Amino acid sequence: MPHFERIDYKPIPVRDLLVEMKNLSELMIDLAYSAALFNDKELAEDVLALEERIDYLAYLLEMEIMIAARGDPKDAAALIGVSTVAAATDKISDAAADIAAIVTRNIGVHPIVGSIFEKVEERLMKATVKEGSAIANKAIGELELASRMGVDVIAIRRNRDWIIDPRDIEKLLVGDTLITRGAPFGTKEFKDIAEGKKQLEEKA
Amino acid sequence: MPHFERIDYKPIPVRDLLVEMKNLSELMIDLAYSAALFNDKELAEDVLALEERIDYLAYLLEMEIMIAARGDPKDAAALIGVSTVAAATDKISDAAADIAAIVTRNIGVHPIVGSIFEKVEERLMKATVKEGSAIANKAIGELELASRMGVDVIAIRRNRDWIIDPRDIEKLLVGDTLITRGAPFGTKEFKDIAEGKKQLEEKA
Repeated sequence: MPHFERIDYKPIPVRDLLVEMKNLSELMIDLAYSAALFNDKELAEDVLALEERIDYLAYLLEMEIMIAARGDPKDAAALIGVSTVAAATDKISDAAADIAAIVTRNIGVHPIVGSIFEKVEERLMKATVKEGSAIANKAIGELELASRMGVDVIAIRRNRDWIIDPRDIEKLLVGDTLITRGAPFGTKEFKDIAEGKKQLEEKA
Repeated sequence: MPHFERIDYKPIPVRDLLVEMKNLSELMIDLAYSAALFNDKELAEDVLALEERIDYLAYLLEMEIMIAARGDPKDAAALIGVSTVAAATDKISDAAADIAAIVTRNIGVHPIVGSIFEKVEERLMKATVKEGSAIANKAIGELELASRMGVDVIAIRRNRDWIIDPRDIEKLLVGDTLITRGAPFGTKEFKDIAEGKKQLEEKA
């Protein structure tokens, strides 16, 4: 007898689903560019895995929307916008997966593609936490990187795993490789601090 | 006799085409969210117009790629990555156009959609240049907004037109409505300066 995979239905508020899809899809674009920029196959594979998560969220969302419409044309019309934004985030995540696949399929980054990453490189920075760094053993939230230097940690590579979109309570450890996003001056400053070349200044 | 529109062929380097497509597609996402956030129909229409520009660039790029491959399988393989990135930027611009269409088609921003913009709102800010503001009559490049406060001016509304992705030499005039992108503290500071509530501090 053929086996049909069943996706368990566990209600999650539509709002939460949509927020996660939106944030994840934008993060994926940056991660995909990072994967191409640093020719990082494991990060590229993680982007492909995230695309599957978006597909799963899209499935749940469509289901919730149909239920929320309650067979009422007025409710259905009001929900069209939600469905449209969800579909847009899905397209964005597809685009990110396409870029990541350049890395996983060894298509190779053509010099022309490399040159478009010049601008990306200003915005995305890779840095490794060195022994004695001012950020070692500190939780991300505690560092207040956004208000201090306009920088976000979007991914941490620890041992062989990537922690994508880490939480504020996540501690940065010596040896962690971090991908940060932000204004050029901020990401450069953060890299210097991560590598122990610069101290963390007191917040103004 | 039917008339077939002909697109004039004027060679533009593939690199330049790809850079413009990438930058434009990312800008479009922010503009589309801004249009939805501020319920701005004219900005939404501009996003739709930009989508047509991306389609045109995509056409030129595919043409250039075919010519660059010179009938050689090795050259063709090397160019696949370029084509993939171009297609990805095209998907992203489609997604942006879908979001903009929520505004132009009066679909209405459902409260759920509104709530996903909470996070966008921190990053995108709308500000009007008031009489006496420290930025009035200054060229964008002169203000060094990126290094000062991590802020970019991504669009200017002047009279009834939007100037998208303005150049460094563009002067900000009293009455201009600006859309800026950046870290939350930076965009807030910029808004206060634009509205004349705060002075422009000397650069550290």
